[in-house]
Amino acid sequence: MNILIKNAVIVTMDAGRVIKNGWLLVGDSKIEAIGEAAVPLAVQSGCKEVIDAGANIIMPGLINAHTHSAMTLFRGYAGGKALSEWLEKYIFPVEDRLEYNDCYWGNQLAACEMLASGTTCCADMYFKSESLAETILQSGMRANISRCGQWFGEEQDDFSADPRLKEQISLYDAYHNAGDGRIKVDIAVHSVYLSTPRYLQTAYALACERGLRFHIHLSETMKENEECAARFGKSPAAYLHDIGVLSQNTIAAHCVHLSEQDMALMAAAGATAVHNPASNLKLASGIAKTWEMHRRGVNVALGTDGVSSNNNLDMFAQMYLAALVACGVSLDAQATDAQSVLEMATVNGAIATGRANRTGMLKAGLAADLIMVDTHAPNMVPMHAAADNLVYAAHGANVRLTMVDGKILYRDGEFLTLDYEKITGEMAKTVGRLF
Amino acid sequence: MNILIKNAVIVTMDAGRVIKNGWLLVGDSKIEAIGEAAVPLAVQSGCKEVIDAGANIIMPGLINAHTHSAMTLFRGYAGGKALSEWLEKYIFPVEDRLEYNDCYWGNQLAACEMLASGTTCCADMYFKSESLAETILQSGMRANISRCGQWFGEEQDDFSADPRLKEQISLYDAYHNAGDGRIKVDIAVHSVYLSTPRYLQTAYALACERGLRFHIHLSETMKENEECAARFGKSPAAYLHDIGVLSQNTIAAHCVHLSEQDMALMAAAGATAVHNPASNLKLASGIAKTWEMHRRGVNVALGTDGVSSNNNLDMFAQMYLAALVACGVSLDAQATDAQSVLEMATVNGAIATGRANRTGMLKAGLAADLIMVDTHAPNMVPMHAAADNLVYAAHGANVRLTMVDGKILYRDGEFLTLDYEKITGEMAKTVGRLF
Repeated sequence: MNILIKNAVIVTMDAGRVIKNGWLLVGDSKIEAIGEAAVPLAVQSGCKEVIDAGANIIMPGLINAHTHSAMTLFRGYAGGKALSEWLEKYIFPVEDRLEYNDCYWGNQLAACEMLASGTTCCADMYFKSESLAETILQSGMRANISRCGQWFGEEQDDFSADPRLKEQISLYDAYHNAGDGRIKVDIAVHSVYLSTPRYLQTAYALACERGLRFHIHLSETMKENEECAARFGKSPAAYLHDIGVLSQNTIAAHCVHLSEQDMALMAAAGATAVHNPASNLKLASGIAKTWEMHRRGVNVALGTDGVSSNNNLDMFAQMYLAALVACGVSLDAQATDAQSVLEMATVNGAIATGRANRTGMLKAGLAADLIMVDTHAPNMVPMHAAADNLVYAAHGANVRLTMVDGKILYRDGEFLTLDYEKITGEMAKTVGRLF
Repeated sequence: MNILIKNAVIVTMDAGRVIKNGWLLVGDSKIEAIGEAAVPLAVQSGCKEVIDAGANIIMPGLINAHTHSAMTLFRGYAGGKALSEWLEKYIFPVEDRLEYNDCYWGNQLAACEMLASGTTCCADMYFKSESLAETILQSGMRANISRCGQWFGEEQDDFSADPRLKEQISLYDAYHNAGDGRIKVDIAVHSVYLSTPRYLQTAYALACERGLRFHIHLSETMKENEECAARFGKSPAAYLHDIGVLSQNTIAAHCVHLSEQDMALMAAAGATAVHNPASNLKLASGIAKTWEMHRRGVNVALGTDGVSSNNNLDMFAQMYLAALVACGVSLDAQATDAQSVLEMATVNGAIATGRANRTGMLKAGLAADLIMVDTHAPNMVPMHAAADNLVYAAHGANVRLTMVDGKILYRDGEFLTLDYEKITGEMAKTVGRLF
């Protein structure tokens, strides 16, 4: 049942090792072995399939560490509006009308877009999350899924009856570790401004009791920081820290307006900051200082945010942006390098999602979550350095094969687990009805 | 000899008109007619080819208004170095060794990358420019080509014997208006800091005498501005204006550090500022305030700069960056919109290159320079607004067909005028020899 991939440039992301002419043996779901040059006869025999990579790159699948998958529904909707008008007049009213099936087809499309552009795992925060769980099971992808909690009202003594928190527990009961662990359920609270201290602590306790990640938007805008300062006399990150919900379990999306002290708190806690460069630029939230976070030891992962504010799920586009913006805004051409950006999109995302012992790099014993990237396309020739071509020259369409847990899910335009024609047909109906 | 394209979403770029279900008739080289809904019988008859666009987008070919095409040779070379070390230790020494054939294969690859990502016209500044001219003639693309002039020494009375300026005249004599006007030769001087007043004036006069564009790098870095202030007591733009070389003929690349007064001078002169967002970010030069230029009436076009500092020639990536960076850096989500960014990459580029009477929009009588963009790819579904999908969701690989002057040059991965396999083979040899 083995698959042998040979004649590949293997970008392992394991301590920066790149094998110029390598081979990789996939067992049922795991990487059995990785080697250089000629494939030993013992390895070749007994393979059900041999893939000649033809000098293309094999690298770990990309991890989109913050997204709202179903929002593919909103691609390009109401562009060019001011943020508050956009949210309140356009996005929220449609979101209020979303039914299970709408989110289902949004998620099915998202899975196609992610697989076709090399993303093998995502960390999602939205609602009707069962529709994503079903999509993940069907597609063969990996995902951390959360039904987002929020509380608009005053502080209360007891949030155990909160319907959103109860839905999170139901989601956990139904889907956590489903699909051989491909699904993990996270606990999520929207943000500091849509919660209270006890609400956050209650949700965080749900996560800790079950060994789950805790996903939250953090310091996305200056307004958020100002309101937090007025309400609690401190920054959002310091507030999370002080109420005890900042730890290595915490996935903090955006982190645009972190102070140096906030970064130190994040680093000491082992929390992850997820950089969402396109969304932060498009919504004029600002620019996260990833280069400062790196220097202070924060685990920085990378995400697309929802398609509504991006407007795509292409992690190659996010890598390009992350690299360019770090250099351009810091005014230091060495503020980051291609290898660090690749780490954000792979190993750091695996740490963020609690999956570093299973995915994020290519290494014997880890899951065979990998992609093949075309090195023969006009935008990838010549290749002086694989990492630089991947970050600065590639786009999602250079991905030719996507594999998760040893199963090929996408290859040369074909989805092997999802029905793309059906999905786009249903998407058209959904959009016709909703908008 | 007509080609009919039907069943298309036509983004004309003519006063913002988008035809949701349109057809377009191509004559020998020009657009004969554009219409809506059903194709009249009289139009259908006599077409040698009918292309069913299948609800894909038809839009004008993109115009890359500042590049150094042959620098595909350097894709990803010496990434992560500081700017001065990068230039002096890595780029310049190799450039010194470049021969005609090296540039030729670099340009051939560039033409492939441009055509495959929807660019139909570029404004190039480099050397061994005959190799680009031959490539443009062969490929069927359109280009403004210039052999870059520069002068490191003191001011002189007479630059008429300068070998670089003489090469520019030879290039003009040999290639200007070749290929039915597809080639235009521009006059170019590298920059204010690599020239003197009389050198600039001499070159500019060569352009004016022949009715040519004048291409120059302008205010790319703060260092350039500071040195110009020390040398001439004014900004680079004011200096160009005062010595009489700023006009509607002037293509000024980068324009990162323009003051409000500089922008007013540019607008009054009718000069074009070419925004190169990736290069300016990657080299930590800064971020051009395109939104301020727009407000002041400057013609802002868009370019990739050389692949060495990008590292691609994908104008879709540049549109994405231009839109995101304008909103994110100005902290105004309405600083620019998708339509304005499309204009930068089409009509404004046509104005920049002196081709507005021939290309840049889809309109009867203009050249049939157009591209077909896939609206069925996962990253392009759904399509609430064509302009937003083109700017924020598309990448170069969504281009399925590229036509210049009524000839199809690229279609679904195939180059119809260039030998891609030969080009990549020769590129590998060239890179092996040079690096």
